[in-house]
Amino acid sequence: MKADWIAVDWGTTHLRAFAMGPEGVRAEASSADGMGALQPAAFEPALIRLIEPWLGHGVTPVLACGMVGSRQGWHEAPYRQVPCRPLEPGQMVHVPLRDPRLAVQIVPGLKQSKPADVMRGEETQIAGALALYPGFDGTICLPGTHSKWAQISAGEVVSFQTYLTGEMFALLGTQSVLRHGMAGEGWDEAAFDAGVAKGMSRPEWLLANLFRLRAEGLIADLGPDAARAQLSGLLIGAELAAARVYWLGTRVLLVGAPGLIALYARALATQAVTAEVLAARDCTIAGLAFAAGVLAKAAE
Amino acid sequence: MKADWIAVDWGTTHLRAFAMGPEGVRAEASSADGMGALQPAAFEPALIRLIEPWLGHGVTPVLACGMVGSRQGWHEAPYRQVPCRPLEPGQMVHVPLRDPRLAVQIVPGLKQSKPADVMRGEETQIAGALALYPGFDGTICLPGTHSKWAQISAGEVVSFQTYLTGEMFALLGTQSVLRHGMAGEGWDEAAFDAGVAKGMSRPEWLLANLFRLRAEGLIADLGPDAARAQLSGLLIGAELAAARVYWLGTRVLLVGAPGLIALYARALATQAVTAEVLAARDCTIAGLAFAAGVLAKAAE
Repeated sequence: MKADWIAVDWGTTHLRAFAMGPEGVRAEASSADGMGALQPAAFEPALIRLIEPWLGHGVTPVLACGMVGSRQGWHEAPYRQVPCRPLEPGQMVHVPLRDPRLAVQIVPGLKQSKPADVMRGEETQIAGALALYPGFDGTICLPGTHSKWAQISAGEVVSFQTYLTGEMFALLGTQSVLRHGMAGEGWDEAAFDAGVAKGMSRPEWLLANLFRLRAEGLIADLGPDAARAQLSGLLIGAELAAARVYWLGTRVLLVGAPGLIALYARALATQAVTAEVLAARDCTIAGLAFAAGVLAKAAE
Repeated sequence: MKADWIAVDWGTTHLRAFAMGPEGVRAEASSADGMGALQPAAFEPALIRLIEPWLGHGVTPVLACGMVGSRQGWHEAPYRQVPCRPLEPGQMVHVPLRDPRLAVQIVPGLKQSKPADVMRGEETQIAGALALYPGFDGTICLPGTHSKWAQISAGEVVSFQTYLTGEMFALLGTQSVLRHGMAGEGWDEAAFDAGVAKGMSRPEWLLANLFRLRAEGLIADLGPDAARAQLSGLLIGAELAAARVYWLGTRVLLVGAPGLIALYARALATQAVTAEVLAARDCTIAGLAFAAGVLAKAAE
């Protein structure tokens, strides 16, 4: 099985590749060769190890997005300034290569000057979401380690804002004093809902509400499942409170990992917002496929 | 040099002991034998290693406060419920010992049921502050890993609230994505002030303002000193915004490490609050000395 072209999602901790044809994904492969673990010279070998079985006799185009294009990555793809379309296929950055069987291009991230903000990888998911939902106007929310809220109008990213929510959840749950009350993997939906309500109504109490989780574990029998779920709710609730201008009275599309976007959808539903949802994986592939289609047409 | 009695401040990461006489501190010693690193049977030997030179022929009283009295510590000293005096010498907990040269008592922490909250160690600092400032009425703020705000009236702790501010600063500055923009040890007062102003005026934007520090480092030349100082200001500002009911229109006394309480005093000054300050070390010793005095009088 050979690929007509190859889509690559290359983040800080992972490398995922998809062998593509006109019918869609023919095969996929992944490795732990994330951008964070590689010196510049190690990117090309890491990629070839993963995709070599898919290479044919000619030159196979590879389109990549994510942290691979950061200054610390393989080859810098400088940020494009919003407002702009999320992905301009003609403005991807060519990577110099040793192996003649490949032609690699990287999607630039987006930046915003005031307030300062950046994204890498999410611009491709947004482009994919717009390819899947042509004419979408409203807000696309991309929950994750660094949750993004992007205002979309007439096919452009008008503005966006990033929240440290996912990273904060991981740090607090595994590195802070709260970890003592959160062992295990269970979940408590009522505690999540209570956390969302508390986080949304008094987001300014976040630093106090966090320690309260510890105190309730010590003197009020708060169990680990409820503590972890309430922590998640407090943080997502605080994010929603701050992002209100992004979701109030507008169409909202959630793009991310299925479990996580279900939490955001549940939290938004308490505010009478019915969010649409798309899987991040599908959007990444659709965004890169959109770019591949434009490039193929231009080359005809 | 022998001690009449010995004051011990025994936290999660440190053990500090003071040889005391009627004139005050005669000698002091410390080690890294914090409560977090010791199994129950290791506490007595760790203490004796540190204080043995101060022991005479009779039985030397040792008064200890801090996490040593937690369930995971040497010997549990169950929390006392507020409202109550911060330290009741008659309610300290005797520790069973092998060595006949010592008599160890531990100060119980305090708890509050609604909202759930706990402290261990700070109750002794509060008792010391009240010994140093007799008749104090108002708020005592104890900045630190877990900052406490305590409302004091008629010699009692009426209520208190804990903020995860210090731990958050440490986690974000050393473990999160923000660490990349915060290398070094410098400081930028103007950036701290800007962080306080931002944190106080929009505490609900904390999760977004945190990521903005990273973005400004990437695209707006925010330097590491300014980033670290602004992070500190954002967190302290958010704490002050949530703790407003504790400091507005009341006498405020800051108890803590000198560098840290200077930051809180500076932030409070922007709100026209002139805080008094005491060093945590002096308050801990004064609190335990108050207890020693009461016990000595009772034994006469």
